[in-house]
Amino acid sequence: MFSFGEKIKIQIFGQSHSDSIGVVIDGLPAGEKIDMDALSAFLKRRAPGRNEHSTMRKEPDIPDFISGLVDGKTCGAPVCAVIQNKDTRSGDYTFLADIPRPGHSDYPAFVKYGGHNDIRGGGQFSARLTAALCIAGGIFAQLLEKKGIYAGAHIQEIHGIKDESFNPVSVSKDILKTVTAKDFPVIDDEKGKLMRREILSAQEIRDSVGGIIELAVVGLPVGVGSHMFGGIENRIAAAMFAVPAVKGIEFGAGFSAANLYGSENNDSYYFDGGIKTKTNNSGGVLGGMTTGMPLLMRVAFKPTPSIAAKQESVSLSEKKNAVLEIVGRHDPCVVPRAVPCAESAALIALGDMIL
Amino acid sequence: MFSFGEKIKIQIFGQSHSDSIGVVIDGLPAGEKIDMDALSAFLKRRAPGRNEHSTMRKEPDIPDFISGLVDGKTCGAPVCAVIQNKDTRSGDYTFLADIPRPGHSDYPAFVKYGGHNDIRGGGQFSARLTAALCIAGGIFAQLLEKKGIYAGAHIQEIHGIKDESFNPVSVSKDILKTVTAKDFPVIDDEKGKLMRREILSAQEIRDSVGGIIELAVVGLPVGVGSHMFGGIENRIAAAMFAVPAVKGIEFGAGFSAANLYGSENNDSYYFDGGIKTKTNNSGGVLGGMTTGMPLLMRVAFKPTPSIAAKQESVSLSEKKNAVLEIVGRHDPCVVPRAVPCAESAALIALGDMIL
Amino acid sequence: MFSFGEKIKIQIFGQSHSDSIGVVIDGLPAGEKIDMDALSAFLKRRAPGRNEHSTMRKEPDIPDFISGLVDGKTCGAPVCAVIQNKDTRSGDYTFLADIPRPGHSDYPAFVKYGGHNDIRGGGQFSARLTAALCIAGGIFAQLLEKKGIYAGAHIQEIHGIKDESFNPVSVSKDILKTVTAKDFPVIDDEKGKLMRREILSAQEIRDSVGGIIELAVVGLPVGVGSHMFGGIENRIAAAMFAVPAVKGIEFGAGFSAANLYGSENNDSYYFDGGIKTKTNNSGGVLGGMTTGMPLLMRVAFKPTPSIAAKQESVSLSEKKNAVLEIVGRHDPCVVPRAVPCAESAALIALGDMIL
Amino acid sequence: MFSFGEKIKIQIFGQSHSDSIGVVIDGLPAGEKIDMDALSAFLKRRAPGRNEHSTMRKEPDIPDFISGLVDGKTCGAPVCAVIQNKDTRSGDYTFLADIPRPGHSDYPAFVKYGGHNDIRGGGQFSARLTAALCIAGGIFAQLLEKKGIYAGAHIQEIHGIKDESFNPVSVSKDILKTVTAKDFPVIDDEKGKLMRREILSAQEIRDSVGGIIELAVVGLPVGVGSHMFGGIENRIAAAMFAVPAVKGIEFGAGFSAANLYGSENNDSYYFDGGIKTKTNNSGGVLGGMTTGMPLLMRVAFKPTPSIAAKQESVSLSEKKNAVLEIVGRHDPCVVPRAVPCAESAALIALGDMIL
Repeated sequence: MFSFGEKIKIQIFGQSHSDSIGVVIDGLPAGEKIDMDALSAFLKRRAPGRNEHSTMRKEPDIPDFISGLVDGKTCGAPVCAVIQNKDTRSGDYTFLADIPRPGHSDYPAFVKYGGHNDIRGGGQFSARLTAALCIAGGIFAQLLEKKGIYAGAHIQEIHGIKDESFNPVSVSKDILKTVTAKDFPVIDDEKGKLMRREILSAQEIRDSVGGIIELAVVGLPVGVGSHMFGGIENRIAAAMFAVPAVKGIEFGAGFSAANLYGSENNDSYYFDGGIKTKTNNSGGVLGGMTTGMPLLMRVAFKPTPSIAAKQESVSLSEKKNAVLEIVGRHDPCVVPRAVPCAESAALIALGDMIL
Repeated sequence: MFSFGEKIKIQIFGQSHSDSIGVVIDGLPAGEKIDMDALSAFLKRRAPGRNEHSTMRKEPDIPDFISGLVDGKTCGAPVCAVIQNKDTRSGDYTFLADIPRPGHSDYPAFVKYGGHNDIRGGGQFSARLTAALCIAGGIFAQLLEKKGIYAGAHIQEIHGIKDESFNPVSVSKDILKTVTAKDFPVIDDEKGKLMRREILSAQEIRDSVGGIIELAVVGLPVGVGSHMFGGIENRIAAAMFAVPAVKGIEFGAGFSAANLYGSENNDSYYFDGGIKTKTNNSGGVLGGMTTGMPLLMRVAFKPTPSIAAKQESVSLSEKKNAVLEIVGRHDPCVVPRAVPCAESAALIALGDMIL
Repeated sequence: MFSFGEKIKIQIFGQSHSDSIGVVIDGLPAGEKIDMDALSAFLKRRAPGRNEHSTMRKEPDIPDFISGLVDGKTCGAPVCAVIQNKDTRSGDYTFLADIPRPGHSDYPAFVKYGGHNDIRGGGQFSARLTAALCIAGGIFAQLLEKKGIYAGAHIQEIHGIKDESFNPVSVSKDILKTVTAKDFPVIDDEKGKLMRREILSAQEIRDSVGGIIELAVVGLPVGVGSHMFGGIENRIAAAMFAVPAVKGIEFGAGFSAANLYGSENNDSYYFDGGIKTKTNNSGGVLGGMTTGMPLLMRVAFKPTPSIAAKQESVSLSEKKNAVLEIVGRHDPCVVPRAVPCAESAALIALGDMIL
Repeated sequence: MFSFGEKIKIQIFGQSHSDSIGVVIDGLPAGEKIDMDALSAFLKRRAPGRNEHSTMRKEPDIPDFISGLVDGKTCGAPVCAVIQNKDTRSGDYTFLADIPRPGHSDYPAFVKYGGHNDIRGGGQFSARLTAALCIAGGIFAQLLEKKGIYAGAHIQEIHGIKDESFNPVSVSKDILKTVTAKDFPVIDDEKGKLMRREILSAQEIRDSVGGIIELAVVGLPVGVGSHMFGGIENRIAAAMFAVPAVKGIEFGAGFSAANLYGSENNDSYYFDGGIKTKTNNSGGVLGGMTTGMPLLMRVAFKPTPSIAAKQESVSLSEKKNAVLEIVGRHDPCVVPRAVPCAESAALIALGDMIL
């Protein structure tokens, strides 16, 4: 399903080469001004062509709001925004009908849809649909900011090269704003340079690399979320895996908590005006609910499956092995453009619980 | 929310010290015989007291089916099963009303529910509710097995001590049955001994440890799941974080994919009767859909937050720092008993899509 | 599905002759005291045996709250209440396996469930499950009353004998409390006597009769509900048809509006402290939203399908015509006992939107 | 909420004067050809300007499919279709900001949305959105027809003038096709002439009239739907009240069953190749499930609230009584154009359960 949310429902639509992609957001509070410049800036962070190494497909990706706004304000009706797909070259992809690309959805989609899925540019499985996700994310960001809640993410790792981490107890709105404003969102720009070089190196050898995004949300009230299936972690994870190439998510100490003693992992409370914790191994969530400390998560992305090198595959029609060579435009690393996508996934999950 | 599922809805209820806990399962196919012995065996894997180091609370945990079955078969009506809470000692927990336990839900729950949440034994946040989850999981396991689908998990790591991993392409029903039948479910029993020793050592120093569970599902058809929010990973993660102490989940190569080249991470297809992949870094899921290869995931558990050592906290009423000493019965490590819980989370997500 | 609600989810379970029936209510606000005497009084209105003509099955129908309450107050955990089925005589119903009762669910249930549905006492299709619905309804009534919202209904018609109607603009909490407190809830008790006589007459000729319930809700704020699928009428109707024997629902002037001019049907606004309407043909709902005037609806019930007279049917096994004679205990009219059920359906729909 | 459906989710968007209105349908089976001519013919039945008495707003209302189709076939991605709003005259409506129209959503919408709702042309409450509903309805009709299921409706009553009724046991696909192909869909065209005259008479006196639509669905398999909240009646009613002006719905004998004995109302089974009933007072649904007999319902529509005559209302800003005169284009009767809308509501509810 391409829909998400209980209180505020998001319905995404489109394929890589359909006329348009877009999103409907149903249940937003009425009377909220959408800052189109801020939204445009948010979307630009995901747009291709910002870095030397990103895909060559050039699209302005300016959303057209065809319903839900009156004088730029929400009116209680569902907000629908669409982006036309302009720069499509469907001819590139016809061979996919028969030889599924390793690491892509081609083969299971072929089986699931009996061969009727849209193969042009990956069809409904294209990362292009994250543009629609980011429209929702950008709007939710604005509405949550009005409540003092800020989300931001940075590239924490690309193919083994690591950026610093957010300080888990003191990461702030200002730090998040600073890092997300960068063309290449890292804390330590020197590390960023190394990462970019690594991406270009991979591209030169007709290969691709993956990475990790670290994401923080500050300003959350205490007690948002619920136990069992409605927890913060459940809901964010349910949204996050909609971002293509995501293969893992952890909160706070996450997998590394498996190496800690309880006495190390537990975050001691102390009183300092309000109730805070000295450490933040919980990542700001206990029992599925926010603790009031920064919400922290790390999201793992696999390397772009589309690589220029020849790959082994099969011919679905001939039922025998085959060799595949992908021609076309592909990012050697999806992580830089995925930063606002990951933020969007977290934002729609949180916004659904808070707005 | 304590409910999950779209086609088959699961509603869990109960608190640690309520009269009973239980589950309602609405939407099961009719005419399915529930094997009570098999279910009982499944539940026993979660039950306390099986190992020397697990909590001392002794409960038979035999579910009573109060609706939905006729002569042991599903009849189309919702199945409700309850387990009475017998061995409760509410007196132990009264101090929690004021001094929240670090690493527990006490503080955010206090804020969320305005102090009205059930504090006895952790109330609705108690891991005891996983007994109800496992009833659902055990039933789904039986129904999926009839379709040739088998799930199984093992302890892959406890406080840095690692078991072997499942072979990602050849893990089989037999391997899963063998490992899950063990009292201490590991592949390499020697590693299991070291793990048990590590858990006892932690207990001796009044501390606790966490770990990682690896889970596999074999026999899945190709093309189950969907893109975006309805993917296999989205749905399983949405269920998995309902298991207390889970702080991360990854599929296939997961976080380690961030260190791989695309050419390394992509799983090449080959033809061998059917279509298979030579490696399984995708963990059996691409584009949110099953590939037909084993579905593989790893789940991170934090150390038990209840430890016997003194901890720093705050007094909610006095708004000042306070020291907490937890008296009572607690597992020094939740991971061994969490194995069938993690399986159950995966099973209810898959069953909702398949049954 | 036996579940209802978006914000507050209700899950009903049980069959006529299962061990128990019950309901889980997930999402109630915490800290709310449930008045068990008031709930008991509410349930008694539905209980059999209150009138000379109601079914002979005697059950105390006292719900046992097995989770969700601490010291009688909601604690944020799902509330589960069960009622044991004590007075069951399963032997009465075995013939139903082959010869479906006209007007009952037997035949479509046989097809839907492949013969696996519980045929004892109508199984999951039994009106007995409305006892569980009324537990939810009675709890919602209490919580809505704290907000000044009162629901009440009366028998408006039995087999052509009509009671007065509520005054659509001035019906009040007091009128609702008075009429619902009656053993036979009508406005005009003389008409009530005629109705009771009509019911007994039907019983004497081994037949049954239907009727109409009129229901009002007062004290609702303006603007509850939403356009399209989330409207007051949509949601109440979605719940109301869960009450067995309901075959129609109309709001305000309803079907009779088809005979009015717009100038007659439109409710003129006037200012009198607040904004009111002179008439209330809308039944208190416009565009799916409450207008602040009393919410008014009428619900049609068919005659009890179980009648003592011989009826024509078929033998499912022999695939030929057959004659059926139903032996057992049946109300000659379900309407009197359905009054709190209809209230409950309206209350769970409204409570889901308001609480 | 503007969304509906569990298995196939429909999300409607738009306002009367927004750039566009439209619908997203998520979950349709892949590989289904949409017959655009048939869809266009379906939509024309709802379009204005077909009769002498319908609103003067002229719009071609040709949907533009911007996603979800490849070569005219569904591809598994959500189908999004939009219709541009071209002939809008927003100037007509500005006065509505202060003086709510009786019988319209203006006043509760003002309160609900704090004055931020779109008042132009009724905004999100406009019957114009039924064009989007009919796109979904028309698509579902095609897919259900492939399974031998046909829906059709006729005007059964306009301001007291009655058409014949469908024969409840023998209404057929051919009858439905014949009646729905008519410009003015009635069984008896003589009655249709009288109805049209009645509508024009109402218009001449600056007034409006309501009516009743009878709807049948034939070819349904037995056992579709479920007990309690997921029944055929629950789901259809939940969709039907989304059609503006609907104030009541009844199935089979409906309200008139309140005047019948059980022996009269029960539909006797007999064997004739398959299992049929001699009468069809149940309207083809028992226990929430289809019986295999025609599904029959009647839907009540109030008179168009927009009338040219002066009406009493209030000034929201001045908090005093005021007089309102509505200038603009309005149907004196919505019923003729509502016929495919009612069909669409039934079709999306059934399609969600069957497709």
